[in-house]
Amino acid sequence: MNQQELIRSLSIKTDTKIVMIVMDGLGGAIHPEKNLTELEASHHPNMDKLAKISACGVQDPVGPGITPGSGPGHLGLFGYDPIKYLIGRGLLDTVGIEVPLTPKDLTARGNFSTLDLGKGVLTDRRAGRIPTEENEQLCKKLSGIKINGTEIYVHPVKEHRVSVIFRGDNLSDSLTDADPQKEGVAPILTQAMEQKAEATAKIVNQFLEESRARLKQEKKANCLLLRGFSKMVNLPSFQEIYKLKSAAIAIYPMYRGLAQLVGMNVLKIKENNLEGEFKTLKENWNNFDFFFLHFKATDSAGEDGSFDKKNAAIEEMDKNIPALRELDPDVIVISGDHSTPTAFSAHSWHPVPTLIYSKRALARGPERFTEYSCLKEGILGKISSQEIMTLSMANAGKLLKYGA
Amino acid sequence: MNQQELIRSLSIKTDTKIVMIVMDGLGGAIHPEKNLTELEASHHPNMDKLAKISACGVQDPVGPGITPGSGPGHLGLFGYDPIKYLIGRGLLDTVGIEVPLTPKDLTARGNFSTLDLGKGVLTDRRAGRIPTEENEQLCKKLSGIKINGTEIYVHPVKEHRVSVIFRGDNLSDSLTDADPQKEGVAPILTQAMEQKAEATAKIVNQFLEESRARLKQEKKANCLLLRGFSKMVNLPSFQEIYKLKSAAIAIYPMYRGLAQLVGMNVLKIKENNLEGEFKTLKENWNNFDFFFLHFKATDSAGEDGSFDKKNAAIEEMDKNIPALRELDPDVIVISGDHSTPTAFSAHSWHPVPTLIYSKRALARGPERFTEYSCLKEGILGKISSQEIMTLSMANAGKLLKYGA
Repeated sequence: MNQQELIRSLSIKTDTKIVMIVMDGLGGAIHPEKNLTELEASHHPNMDKLAKISACGVQDPVGPGITPGSGPGHLGLFGYDPIKYLIGRGLLDTVGIEVPLTPKDLTARGNFSTLDLGKGVLTDRRAGRIPTEENEQLCKKLSGIKINGTEIYVHPVKEHRVSVIFRGDNLSDSLTDADPQKEGVAPILTQAMEQKAEATAKIVNQFLEESRARLKQEKKANCLLLRGFSKMVNLPSFQEIYKLKSAAIAIYPMYRGLAQLVGMNVLKIKENNLEGEFKTLKENWNNFDFFFLHFKATDSAGEDGSFDKKNAAIEEMDKNIPALRELDPDVIVISGDHSTPTAFSAHSWHPVPTLIYSKRALARGPERFTEYSCLKEGILGKISSQEIMTLSMANAGKLLKYGA
Repeated sequence: MNQQELIRSLSIKTDTKIVMIVMDGLGGAIHPEKNLTELEASHHPNMDKLAKISACGVQDPVGPGITPGSGPGHLGLFGYDPIKYLIGRGLLDTVGIEVPLTPKDLTARGNFSTLDLGKGVLTDRRAGRIPTEENEQLCKKLSGIKINGTEIYVHPVKEHRVSVIFRGDNLSDSLTDADPQKEGVAPILTQAMEQKAEATAKIVNQFLEESRARLKQEKKANCLLLRGFSKMVNLPSFQEIYKLKSAAIAIYPMYRGLAQLVGMNVLKIKENNLEGEFKTLKENWNNFDFFFLHFKATDSAGEDGSFDKKNAAIEEMDKNIPALRELDPDVIVISGDHSTPTAFSAHSWHPVPTLIYSKRALARGPERFTEYSCLKEGILGKISSQEIMTLSMANAGKLLKYGA
């Protein structure tokens, strides 16, 4: 019995409520010029106040030294083993456009590109970033293709980008990219990486040839490239494991898609900003017992390498904490899917500060909500991201005793 | 190779001695009115003195957020994976009466109850809590029943409670309770939860019918109910893994039974109190190289929600530490099988403070033996309960180097 099976066997339905706030890329690191982390440098009195009475610690999203992408980062927070369940790039993109998927599906991310038909080489991998409207028209041109019983759906994403779903029996994702990832060379087909993928490779390549034939007359977008082939993952649902009626509040499609993948109800948000997210939370307060609220700005600022912008993002979240507490959730979790230190301008492996507030925590937390004070002064020490859901369930009184 | 197999391959017999003191439910939490944990509020100078020169930390008995029962709590302390080895309720009760068990055995806990024969409904699930002596007589009435080669033994526990052992080939514990757990309804039979348990269900139900027939004339105890069916677990023995000649000193049957299950020698105690336990330890000092000493009062006070009683229990243990140190054990472990914060009046998932004293520890411990100081100032940080035996063996010089 693994951790998740154990939780499933112990979880019970109660009327307590859990709010999990994921501040994307929350964790920081000591900035060489400031000699402080972003959480240390920013002013967030409401989170500090909460930390002081919470079970605090730091968490490794996947494991020490492992830098996670958004997929594994979120799966860990949701209590899924991110090494067991890998969400491929194609799938991550496809769940982001919120189309229903089936266990049979093989997904891929695609680019419309420009091929010099005379020379046979790619001249623009992004087809001049055609407008999304043109993309939508091209996807219609590619609709209705069926190869050996496999149905193929091409969905527009944005500009030159599409998501492709192959729906058929026994499809495999052991496929190389059908995209040379550079210009001035010929477009390529996919190759099977193991024998069981050979039939799938043939289907994909026939589709690519058919699509390129249908696009031949286009001036810019006359060649489709595919990469990141990934099969649908069969995740046990959040509802099954935790007996929670859960809702996701996220602006960006990828996070909405990730939540949908574990079976959360993805809520509509009227205004696409943090205020709008908290409004959505309040409006739906009585309808769910678990809320995942995603905040992107901390990560974006981290990726931009802007210390000040990351501090501002932290402070923006902090201002919303009092209103959240007025709703009186039984458990409030504040953590991140990974660290994005501004000194890195990228995701990193640094542990993520984490706070689990509840009346049952009966914990003495740190004076401030920062990486080092959570680790040194919090009762949780260092945990794995997957343990956050277990602790949240325990703190919400939703887990039975294990064994007699 | 798992952790336990590794230890087995490295352990050697030496003449050093380990004493493991299990203060049941030792761990506490910040009491909302006192703003202190029980260990913080109580006066235990001898444990503090020991902590200062010990390897200290906190331990999760099963995992973060998991509230353990006594079975998993103790198995972890003894170095067994409490998720791999689950001791069912029936087995836990049966080991408590200290009857020898075999790997074939299926156990259950039973109640004598009162059935209104006219209406066919249970009127008292506890048969008016008949005296234990009457229970013993009834068990004799039920002796010698054998069904399809399966021998059945009914052992008195206390008042209306019995333990039943089914000894036969291929018995399964995938059985529902043969006990409706309420009054005013008819008694029920067991049902197989999977196909392989169907033959066992038939045997159990035939036994129930035969027992009810034999009890028909009883005024109060005319119906036997069974629940918590559990198969004997096949635990590798303490002696095999650690090469330790081990002794258990515990007053309550359940803990004596748990120790017996891993193959410890369960010692007789003349006076059933902590003083009597320490006397037993001293008298048997030369005969064993591992002692498990169980102290119940910390848990009982925790369950009662009495902050003062829990403090008194801690202080009672503390007074015995100097005499223990006079015996000069090579290793002293002080920990608990789980936390029982008085603010909860129940077991909880909060990590348990732990101290491992030895001359080989060469450690700088905290000023006081409390949850937060063990975690923050101790060298162990947060560990899993299963690691305590490994650390104890290392500190006793009983583990060889791993690899060249």
